[in-house]
Amino acid sequence: MTITINDIREAEARIQPYAHRTPVLTNESLNQQVGAQVFLKCENLQKVGAFKFRGACNAVYSLSDEEAARGVCTHSSGNHAAALALAAKMRGIPAYIVMPNNAPAVKKNAVAGYGGRITFCEPTLEARESTLDGIRLDTGANVIHPYNDERVIAGQGTVALELLEDVADLDVIIAPVGGGGLLSGTSIAAAEMKKGIRVIAGEPEMADDAFRSMKAGKIIPSENPKTIADGLLTSLGNLTFPIIQKNVEQIVTVSEAGIIASMKFIWERAKIIIEPSSAVAIGALWEKKINLSGIKIGVIISGGNVDLGKLPWQ
Amino acid sequence: MTITINDIREAEARIQPYAHRTPVLTNESLNQQVGAQVFLKCENLQKVGAFKFRGACNAVYSLSDEEAARGVCTHSSGNHAAALALAAKMRGIPAYIVMPNNAPAVKKNAVAGYGGRITFCEPTLEARESTLDGIRLDTGANVIHPYNDERVIAGQGTVALELLEDVADLDVIIAPVGGGGLLSGTSIAAAEMKKGIRVIAGEPEMADDAFRSMKAGKIIPSENPKTIADGLLTSLGNLTFPIIQKNVEQIVTVSEAGIIASMKFIWERAKIIIEPSSAVAIGALWEKKINLSGIKIGVIISGGNVDLGKLPWQ
Repeated sequence: MTITINDIREAEARIQPYAHRTPVLTNESLNQQVGAQVFLKCENLQKVGAFKFRGACNAVYSLSDEEAARGVCTHSSGNHAAALALAAKMRGIPAYIVMPNNAPAVKKNAVAGYGGRITFCEPTLEARESTLDGIRLDTGANVIHPYNDERVIAGQGTVALELLEDVADLDVIIAPVGGGGLLSGTSIAAAEMKKGIRVIAGEPEMADDAFRSMKAGKIIPSENPKTIADGLLTSLGNLTFPIIQKNVEQIVTVSEAGIIASMKFIWERAKIIIEPSSAVAIGALWEKKINLSGIKIGVIISGGNVDLGKLPWQ
Repeated sequence: MTITINDIREAEARIQPYAHRTPVLTNESLNQQVGAQVFLKCENLQKVGAFKFRGACNAVYSLSDEEAARGVCTHSSGNHAAALALAAKMRGIPAYIVMPNNAPAVKKNAVAGYGGRITFCEPTLEARESTLDGIRLDTGANVIHPYNDERVIAGQGTVALELLEDVADLDVIIAPVGGGGLLSGTSIAAAEMKKGIRVIAGEPEMADDAFRSMKAGKIIPSENPKTIADGLLTSLGNLTFPIIQKNVEQIVTVSEAGIIASMKFIWERAKIIIEPSSAVAIGALWEKKINLSGIKIGVIISGGNVDLGKLPWQ
């Protein structure tokens, strides 16, 4: 199946009653700092504090009533889990969530708060998948993968759709890349909405599997990465990678210091709370490894879920 | 001179090229917490991180060219100073700023960053006023008082104007009160925009001079107040008090613990950075001293200037 702009438009209509249309903010200090005109699409202000609600919501409301009755399940390091739990709660169906036992407390509490039924496991892909498989066999719940799922990718594509509806003449869109759901959806929407628009990704240097996958021409899995950007630890999927390969110009890696500096700058100047994974997209501008000066850049602020008791500049 | 809705509409047109139209955000967790439907008018996302830019900008652009050439001056504990410095910079005129020597570093740096010419003084009203007087006599600069100024009050009134343009059916608007510029402007705009709308203020218990002034029927000056809400230390003015007396239903006092809890809740759930003075308006709902359940409430988030190295929950 190929995901098209029509799937993204359908997703937009499907999630519209449930999701926020998030604002696009500008900040003069940021523009001066990076030497370009930046438009921040604020998915940190989305429900559950992350763009992930869009994909999860689109998936949940794509199910038939019969499918939905069995519930949904997933494994996730956090934001997708909270998003799926809330979307399921809205539809009145159970959400079974497999979480790594090292997920931040704020994310665990969020999932529980939205009524998700959590099973903890070791923080490895193998443990997550086998735990999830057991739950699926027990309950018959529909697996909603955090990113390697057409419905999820189409849902995430609605971010760029809205951004380009609001600011039609962007030259570039920058999004962070983890599993590639947001980036692949963004790239499909962007290519269809504006001829010639460039799509660039930011990725932590310390979790640069997408960067290396693009160079190698095949998926190189992420191996036990250590980065403050805890939403970007996962590897690309067999659905997201080919879309990214086709549509994304390049992946810019960002140092841990660049992520933290970008995050603090946005907190101080733009007065919004962004999580480290979001700061990676700002960091791609911040460290000036590529020349984007003087142009119009849309940056997708992916989420704002941060443990306020554990800030990286304390 | 009486300030009318026409002055506020003129201010809106005057500042429109320079100020942000700030978004109105909603948050389901907040609604559940306070038992009402809350609309946050986000002046923390305004230029200089506070509503103060509106009043300062309106005042600066109300000057004739001849007046403007001599510059502007003021005394302020912070946000008005930054706002006046930026508005003056935009118009290309000097801004002379008298600041108390105990103002937060983040606010001093902001004023300097906008090109304001700072003179420090002791943190008393007397020291501020005499220092300012000297500067005015030396330079001929126009004094732009932080709140006791018709142009400033009209400018601050544009916040409520925009809020009611976006959400016409509010039952109540809550704003914080310090010197009363925002509150008086809000009350004029609200009364004219929607018949019967209620305007309520939040004030720190530890700086409750406006609360006491309303009870006494005359201005009771603030005397060396100690509260985390450092934007609300000043006393009402002879322009703002009668407007507030006439239009404001009541002033709700908020404990320091309520201010901090409200602030943290908004950071965690709404993902925006608000300063303690803004949290006072949320706090008026938080502590449930008045019954506002089930209705539509607009809350003016006045600013977001916080020293990130010195958070009250650390």
